[in-house]
Amino acid sequence: MYQPFTVRLLLGWALLCLSRLTLAQPPRGPLVVSPQVNADKSVTFRYLAPQAKEVRLSAQFEKAPVAMTKDAQGIWSVTTSPIKPDIYPYSFQVDGVTVMDPANVAFFPNERFKASLVDIPGDTPLIHALRDVPHGSVNYEYYPSIEGTTGSLVVYTPPGYDKNASQKYPVYYLISGTTDTEETFFKVGKTNWILDNLIAEGKAKPMIVVMPYGNIAARIAEQKGGTKPADPTVRDGDDAVKRANDFATDLVRNVIPYTEKAYRAIPNRDSRAIGGFSRGGGQTLRTAFGNMDRFAWVCAYSSYLSPQEMEKSFPQIAGKPNDTNKQLKLLWVSVGSDDFLYKGTVEFMDYLKAKQVNYKSLITDGGHTWMNVKHYVAETTPLLFR
Amino acid sequence: MYQPFTVRLLLGWALLCLSRLTLAQPPRGPLVVSPQVNADKSVTFRYLAPQAKEVRLSAQFEKAPVAMTKDAQGIWSVTTSPIKPDIYPYSFQVDGVTVMDPANVAFFPNERFKASLVDIPGDTPLIHALRDVPHGSVNYEYYPSIEGTTGSLVVYTPPGYDKNASQKYPVYYLISGTTDTEETFFKVGKTNWILDNLIAEGKAKPMIVVMPYGNIAARIAEQKGGTKPADPTVRDGDDAVKRANDFATDLVRNVIPYTEKAYRAIPNRDSRAIGGFSRGGGQTLRTAFGNMDRFAWVCAYSSYLSPQEMEKSFPQIAGKPNDTNKQLKLLWVSVGSDDFLYKGTVEFMDYLKAKQVNYKSLITDGGHTWMNVKHYVAETTPLLFR
Repeated sequence: MYQPFTVRLLLGWALLCLSRLTLAQPPRGPLVVSPQVNADKSVTFRYLAPQAKEVRLSAQFEKAPVAMTKDAQGIWSVTTSPIKPDIYPYSFQVDGVTVMDPANVAFFPNERFKASLVDIPGDTPLIHALRDVPHGSVNYEYYPSIEGTTGSLVVYTPPGYDKNASQKYPVYYLISGTTDTEETFFKVGKTNWILDNLIAEGKAKPMIVVMPYGNIAARIAEQKGGTKPADPTVRDGDDAVKRANDFATDLVRNVIPYTEKAYRAIPNRDSRAIGGFSRGGGQTLRTAFGNMDRFAWVCAYSSYLSPQEMEKSFPQIAGKPNDTNKQLKLLWVSVGSDDFLYKGTVEFMDYLKAKQVNYKSLITDGGHTWMNVKHYVAETTPLLFR
Repeated sequence: MYQPFTVRLLLGWALLCLSRLTLAQPPRGPLVVSPQVNADKSVTFRYLAPQAKEVRLSAQFEKAPVAMTKDAQGIWSVTTSPIKPDIYPYSFQVDGVTVMDPANVAFFPNERFKASLVDIPGDTPLIHALRDVPHGSVNYEYYPSIEGTTGSLVVYTPPGYDKNASQKYPVYYLISGTTDTEETFFKVGKTNWILDNLIAEGKAKPMIVVMPYGNIAARIAEQKGGTKPADPTVRDGDDAVKRANDFATDLVRNVIPYTEKAYRAIPNRDSRAIGGFSRGGGQTLRTAFGNMDRFAWVCAYSSYLSPQEMEKSFPQIAGKPNDTNKQLKLLWVSVGSDDFLYKGTVEFMDYLKAKQVNYKSLITDGGHTWMNVKHYVAETTPLLFR
């Protein structure tokens, strides 16, 4: 593990390609199998590091890092207790350095941390499981975005999309959180498999899901040669609001027209939903409340706008609740009881209630996690476009 | 960096969401910008690790790891010399532990190592650059594969595919190397942008590119609950040949029929090409030579079959060179002069030449790298389907 990977790669290949030798040792050191999900739902994690002094497992199903032990080959391992089936992020701490699991290709796309993913299946398949049902497709698209940049989208099309060449579909615009990327709802949220399963069971309507990248300021810097700006430090400060507005502008002016041209999307507000997690939930609420002619279905997962911000920026929402209730076919707010945004989210719900704005809510266990996001996606997509 | 990321995430978010405080410190410690490509094509790499004793940069443009130095904030950095424009894998060695760059979302999908990618643009855009041309789409597909497993494909469709609903396209089946995944030709090879650019310039025909996962034995183990097997240790040993044959069987029986049903593919041998890098090049040659009725265009990038293996498994290729030359519209072999497979590849070329089997070849600088793979893809795709 301590060679540069170029050297490891060459060593491995050189061994692989010595075609007339039978090798006693496999190339690249011992094969490390990790994570290994056991029959009792415990998981064995392994990491090859003969020279490390201490390796620990850091995982979202553990409250604190767990010590791992080293075998004679230099492989550190730990077997956990049985874990509640779900997909969890984890990483290793190797002498204090946080690393992804090199043996695992499943990872958490993010701009500021790197984590691997372990999928612990249920005895009956969970809603996000890869099952033997018709599968939709997930498409990486490039579109002309603001300030001359090229934006990227991840787009789910439902099973049968390519065969039913005359059918048009409603669209769910789904936005991930701060430091997440346009890949996170796909790679971590398993939105495609959740919808494949719900559609197969007749529980959700076939729909297109468009997953944009939320951090437009970073993309402009990247493509225009500037320095990537830090995330706003004040939730409703001028910088945060400007960025949310830039996002809304790009979505309305560029993403929606691109989608409705490139895909067989139904181009009206009753067939457009918008939702998001965390920062993406804030962008969702601002984009929806600022463009009530565009979206009829709105889902905020673990996110909210404060009553003050509602009164300041979107007074018409609570000011004319009958209009709002007529326009919005769904306003959904959900949060986990351990989420550090719990209090603010409940205040938002209380505000809506006091103002007689209709909404649906779900309060679950757990915190600000993608385990909860998957759950919320599975709860809300069956409600859309009904 | 030494907190579990869950804690970091919560800390960051807690700070972000304190809506009425102006914070002197941004959340999650200082924003680390890395990699930063400078105007003179040098690159500044940065890594936050206040407590590390030694951090080094390991990159495919450097012969050996390069020392980084720590500033007062605990950010380690190094600025390289100007580098030849290209996309290079790199990682950090933090007290001997190899890690990806946490600040960079561009990464190298691989089963046994984790690396980040730095893209150093040319003064005129390189062939793989994201340019302002019509873009194709990259699609993640799931298909019924062998032994009841669900296989995954990454599929490029050219610009205009969705608009020209009556047009059919030829298909290039493109296979990545050992420990690579079905994502590697997309995420590292930038095959989609290379083709977008070549098609925009009129240099390549619009085509579909299907990128399968090469390690079928691993997928079966993963989905059937077995233990992931080690890679074969002998290049042409029984295990390697069996696995290559399983791959060929899956490609011919499952991947091609799936593709030709799900996409507007032209279903004949003149409109099917197959190519691959490294192990994928070996799979390419075996699949093509074992199924001469299926493919008319064959590209081996940094790979070969030995004359002994050709005589043993595919005697008809050199035994009836006129038939072979009539059937294959292209047999391409390329390799870098520093590639550890250089000698074997040249032996393969010499064998073809001695047997009067037509082929085209390209010998470049460089080694067994994805820099060379991109170059070979850009050289060969204009030749296909002519």
